[in-house]
Amino acid sequence: MRPSGRAPDEMRPITIETGFTKHAEGSCLISCGDTRVLCTASVEERIPPWLRGKGEGWVTGEYSMLPRATHTRGSREAARGKQSGRTQEIQRLIGRSLRAVVDLKKLGERQITLDCDVIQADGGTRTASISGAWVALRLAVNSLMASGDIKQDPIEKQVAAISCGIYQGTPVLDLDYAEDSNADADANFVLIEGGQIAEVQATAEGATYDEEGLLRLLRLAKIGCDGIFAAQLDAVK
Amino acid sequence: MRPSGRAPDEMRPITIETGFTKHAEGSCLISCGDTRVLCTASVEERIPPWLRGKGEGWVTGEYSMLPRATHTRGSREAARGKQSGRTQEIQRLIGRSLRAVVDLKKLGERQITLDCDVIQADGGTRTASISGAWVALRLAVNSLMASGDIKQDPIEKQVAAISCGIYQGTPVLDLDYAEDSNADADANFVLIEGGQIAEVQATAEGATYDEEGLLRLLRLAKIGCDGIFAAQLDAVK
Amino acid sequence: MRPSGRAPDEMRPITIETGFTKHAEGSCLISCGDTRVLCTASVEERIPPWLRGKGEGWVTGEYSMLPRATHTRGSREAARGKQSGRTQEIQRLIGRSLRAVVDLKKLGERQITLDCDVIQADGGTRTASISGAWVALRLAVNSLMASGDIKQDPIEKQVAAISCGIYQGTPVLDLDYAEDSNADADANFVLIEGGQIAEVQATAEGATYDEEGLLRLLRLAKIGCDGIFAAQLDAVK
Amino acid sequence: MRPSGRAPDEMRPITIETGFTKHAEGSCLISCGDTRVLCTASVEERIPPWLRGKGEGWVTGEYSMLPRATHTRGSREAARGKQSGRTQEIQRLIGRSLRAVVDLKKLGERQITLDCDVIQADGGTRTASISGAWVALRLAVNSLMASGDIKQDPIEKQVAAISCGIYQGTPVLDLDYAEDSNADADANFVLIEGGQIAEVQATAEGATYDEEGLLRLLRLAKIGCDGIFAAQLDAVK
Amino acid sequence: MRPSGRAPDEMRPITIETGFTKHAEGSCLISCGDTRVLCTASVEERIPPWLRGKGEGWVTGEYSMLPRATHTRGSREAARGKQSGRTQEIQRLIGRSLRAVVDLKKLGERQITLDCDVIQADGGTRTASISGAWVALRLAVNSLMASGDIKQDPIEKQVAAISCGIYQGTPVLDLDYAEDSNADADANFVLIEGGQIAEVQATAEGATYDEEGLLRLLRLAKIGCDGIFAAQLDAVK
Amino acid sequence: MRPSGRAPDEMRPITIETGFTKHAEGSCLISCGDTRVLCTASVEERIPPWLRGKGEGWVTGEYSMLPRATHTRGSREAARGKQSGRTQEIQRLIGRSLRAVVDLKKLGERQITLDCDVIQADGGTRTASISGAWVALRLAVNSLMASGDIKQDPIEKQVAAISCGIYQGTPVLDLDYAEDSNADADANFVLIEGGQIAEVQATAEGATYDEEGLLRLLRLAKIGCDGIFAAQLDAVK
Repeated sequence: MRPSGRAPDEMRPITIETGFTKHAEGSCLISCGDTRVLCTASVEERIPPWLRGKGEGWVTGEYSMLPRATHTRGSREAARGKQSGRTQEIQRLIGRSLRAVVDLKKLGERQITLDCDVIQADGGTRTASISGAWVALRLAVNSLMASGDIKQDPIEKQVAAISCGIYQGTPVLDLDYAEDSNADADANFVLIEGGQIAEVQATAEGATYDEEGLLRLLRLAKIGCDGIFAAQLDAVK
Repeated sequence: MRPSGRAPDEMRPITIETGFTKHAEGSCLISCGDTRVLCTASVEERIPPWLRGKGEGWVTGEYSMLPRATHTRGSREAARGKQSGRTQEIQRLIGRSLRAVVDLKKLGERQITLDCDVIQADGGTRTASISGAWVALRLAVNSLMASGDIKQDPIEKQVAAISCGIYQGTPVLDLDYAEDSNADADANFVLIEGGQIAEVQATAEGATYDEEGLLRLLRLAKIGCDGIFAAQLDAVK
Repeated sequence: MRPSGRAPDEMRPITIETGFTKHAEGSCLISCGDTRVLCTASVEERIPPWLRGKGEGWVTGEYSMLPRATHTRGSREAARGKQSGRTQEIQRLIGRSLRAVVDLKKLGERQITLDCDVIQADGGTRTASISGAWVALRLAVNSLMASGDIKQDPIEKQVAAISCGIYQGTPVLDLDYAEDSNADADANFVLIEGGQIAEVQATAEGATYDEEGLLRLLRLAKIGCDGIFAAQLDAVK
Repeated sequence: MRPSGRAPDEMRPITIETGFTKHAEGSCLISCGDTRVLCTASVEERIPPWLRGKGEGWVTGEYSMLPRATHTRGSREAARGKQSGRTQEIQRLIGRSLRAVVDLKKLGERQITLDCDVIQADGGTRTASISGAWVALRLAVNSLMASGDIKQDPIEKQVAAISCGIYQGTPVLDLDYAEDSNADADANFVLIEGGQIAEVQATAEGATYDEEGLLRLLRLAKIGCDGIFAAQLDAVK
Repeated sequence: MRPSGRAPDEMRPITIETGFTKHAEGSCLISCGDTRVLCTASVEERIPPWLRGKGEGWVTGEYSMLPRATHTRGSREAARGKQSGRTQEIQRLIGRSLRAVVDLKKLGERQITLDCDVIQADGGTRTASISGAWVALRLAVNSLMASGDIKQDPIEKQVAAISCGIYQGTPVLDLDYAEDSNADADANFVLIEGGQIAEVQATAEGATYDEEGLLRLLRLAKIGCDGIFAAQLDAVK
Repeated sequence: MRPSGRAPDEMRPITIETGFTKHAEGSCLISCGDTRVLCTASVEERIPPWLRGKGEGWVTGEYSMLPRATHTRGSREAARGKQSGRTQEIQRLIGRSLRAVVDLKKLGERQITLDCDVIQADGGTRTASISGAWVALRLAVNSLMASGDIKQDPIEKQVAAISCGIYQGTPVLDLDYAEDSNADADANFVLIEGGQIAEVQATAEGATYDEEGLLRLLRLAKIGCDGIFAAQLDAVK
């Protein structure tokens, strides 16, 4: 029934290739089916002005799609001279999601920027970005701990994200583009290992849903994130 | 226990003053406690380029805070030369929320823009904007129907929004600024009359929450929106 | 003969509602007929870089129209990404006009920003902004004096503004939109209590005028400003 | 008493060199003392969108200072990415002033842009721009009439502009930079041959002035503009 | 003597992986040592406005570096709101270089955009972009010919580019970052199969060079481009 | 055979009028045939942030065309809100070219900005800018040495620039607009007195050229620059 033939609770295959670029303190290329995002973590020994003197660090995210990551070419945001509302919304989500699992005091007065650049898009680019960004962050923090720059691990938990939706009346896990563009409702869940919720962004496009519908999507998301948590651990070990 | 002394499921008083400005096809000043938003609906006989020839209309939202709506003056977005990510995120939310209850075919080839300008802010400006925008939209559509420009009512339902959060461990309804800036978790719900969900945007700032926590917030939101639905009906009758 | 039926030297009714918003150090909603402008005065304990070390303060103005303040909706300057030439011209005029009656040394090293946001427009928005900004400024300075932050009153006089024009050959006072859009000549006068001139901006749109015509407009403006001075005093006492 | 030793009603020498650049339909370099402005008139067979179908043309002005026209180098507006409020205000003034003497119907459906680029500044750049722009416009229209593109002369009168001010208590004509930066009051007059007023922009910087003061400045301006009208005629004959 | 131990006329290993992304009509990841650029060719059935009605197509280039392609993170151009002069200069070079080998008439009224996104930088990103862009273009045109949309091959020749420079007094081929940042002189050559020159951009940073020096660099470039031509052919066959 | 009737190795007449504006520390109007560029050198006692504490100065260039310097009016970059890629490319070239002959240590911690504003364009504006900028720089440095602010002359050599191209199969020197817009190949050479090369930017527009062609253009450029070197010396003595 799903265009891909997947079962409703079946995710696309996930692969995480670490060390994809050599300059970043942490990097990976995460693939969720045909969606591929390059995630890098850059450590800088500076903090935003409003944090000065608080003895804390900062974790932030940036997001972009390459112009031809999509079916038809999109114009380059740098050429248009501004980032779209969608891009800014996703960047803010990435930052909040990662900060939900980091103790900024333990990070010390430094900033880690998680750049998520979509190489190829097939639905779920923002959730793949979050899941991959955690891996890049983990690798960058490992290196800061190995060098002695950080004494105590500031990363408290794993965080991962997945989209779910109602496709032709059925709740399904991990929407690809064919589903995403036709789904009745669409929800992105950012979950923390152990079952806690960091973020829910649920939108009814065509049809609305009720409390029961929201719960069914949340349960699918838990199944999905458990799979991602395993892939993350496997990648960083 | 709440700074305002309200019970956990007690909303702030809502008033909706219709016809606040004379030029707009529909307008109201909605007050939720000390949060006051001027909502206007402007009808234009044109549609976005990508809708041409489809026989449909469009409903969109814009949002802004006056510079001194807040405790300290914020710089004017027009002077900075761009809208913040937060503003764009809220504008997109307002548009989606209202479109969730409008049959764009019945609207015909015209666009209605819902401008939500925050005169005074005390928490919950985006949710007040959505609740007030519905009133402005209802008034504008009434006038289009009265003039015969629209034959069948394109507004299918009421839509309203409210924020809930976990404040000092307790789920509470309708956060004001004092609560919002200290809440452990914060969720905005956009609900449709009859109990359906249009949007959920839930964020764990300090602590995360689990499935049960999300449900408790959703149930508070239903209580709140029922009150808003009544105030909306009262305003437009 | 005037569209409103007013006598040539008859102003529209003026009302000034102080304390319209609660966060600003001074605020009022000024109505000149159907033109309504929200004026707020924000005190900040900082000064522009080029004033540092001079022991002086600064008074500046900002101006904006809400998108649907006018008959047809105008696009939002924040969305267009820049302020129009008209907006900047008016902002500069507001700042100069208020500084004409303030002793910046007595103000001390602080800045007061006068935000004039047009809620509803029916001609004369720039002059109403100046007249209302004086009230907001007066209230903010009163509060600085009450708290002892300022010892000597830096406001030396009242300042007010009004437009005059030649409508169908007759000099008239306080143009509304119906007159303004058809006037042969249009002049904005910023006057100081006691009859001094702070600014004249006179433009011949259709027909030009001579020295005698300019004087007749100036005399009308004096009549008008006397009325505004009284309304200002009444509002702040 | 004046820094330059001029009498109060004495203008600086004016020279107008026509044909300063070869591509423009009309051009001149106007020098008012050490203030030098290159004015070009460019004819384009297109009109702004809002004039289409009205059988009228348009006259507009643009203004800029070269970065080192002034005592200290100013940053380039093209590099900063926006035109200052001052620049926009002056551009609007140039356009209005020239349109005051042009019959746009006789101009036909074409646009003439008057570019005023300040090569060297020593006070009075905006008024020199207007006086020079009239010469460039006259030359461009002459050429359109010679070619038969225009049948009836659309230029109805001469227009010129001059600044006056109160310097150390004395009303003086044609402020140079040394006076302008220390004047108590400063007024720009745009006058039309025969004594009519097109624009007055009078600002009290230090001290205010009364009706009598305004009249004295206006009378000085008439003396000055009579000299400019003669120089314009001499340049274009 | 070279930091990498390469001989003066020895290039870094080149690999070209075609089909790196699935949506683009042509794509490859070109690696020149540690410099890696993703090149995609996007075919659009539209042309720039100034080409309409001429029966010709257009080939253009865009270029960007991912923020962490470099040793230290660079800010994102989309976030800064404009493209740097360096980016624009490179984009123009890419477009001119590719157009030098394309018959735009045979391409027909369509545009091909060559996006060159630098994944990892180690010197020579602009030359690698050009060499890779030819491969992406070749693949896209092959597909247009296979579908019958183009009858005659519009690509007349191969084009490739390489940098040369004078490093510690010795002319060397294919500068990497360690050399590039310390070279006395630096030249980028865009060559066409058969030995013709499409572009030379030679800059003396520290020391200047004479005619003989320029010729020696050109001869090294020919050696380098012959190697790239072979790699290109191998990739597209 | 050339549209101007010049011999292939014949330059247009060059004139350099120094002291064209009075405020700049150095200035000249350079004319190469009908191409006229105003070059000013502005000395500022500040340096870019990245040079602080190095005991060095900086030399940079800015470039602009007046809107009607060209056959048809071009829009003003300040009004468009950004500088074109072409402008930025030329600015970078001017800066690099002048820095090639300046010892930045001897300049001391100050910045000299070379503003090149094209008054009238007829081909070769960027090369005329470089040749004129050297004169303005020389005059400004002379004045700094005369005042004792600089002890040792930081200008080591003369630098000049000229364009050459292949026009109807013949290599020609100093392209004017009529040739430039029809040339098969076009090269800009920046040469240093004594025969060294500072920059080569050679582009094949229609046809490509080989090593021999490049050499022939370089030799023409040497002839041309020798003439400019003489004119520069003559202007500054």
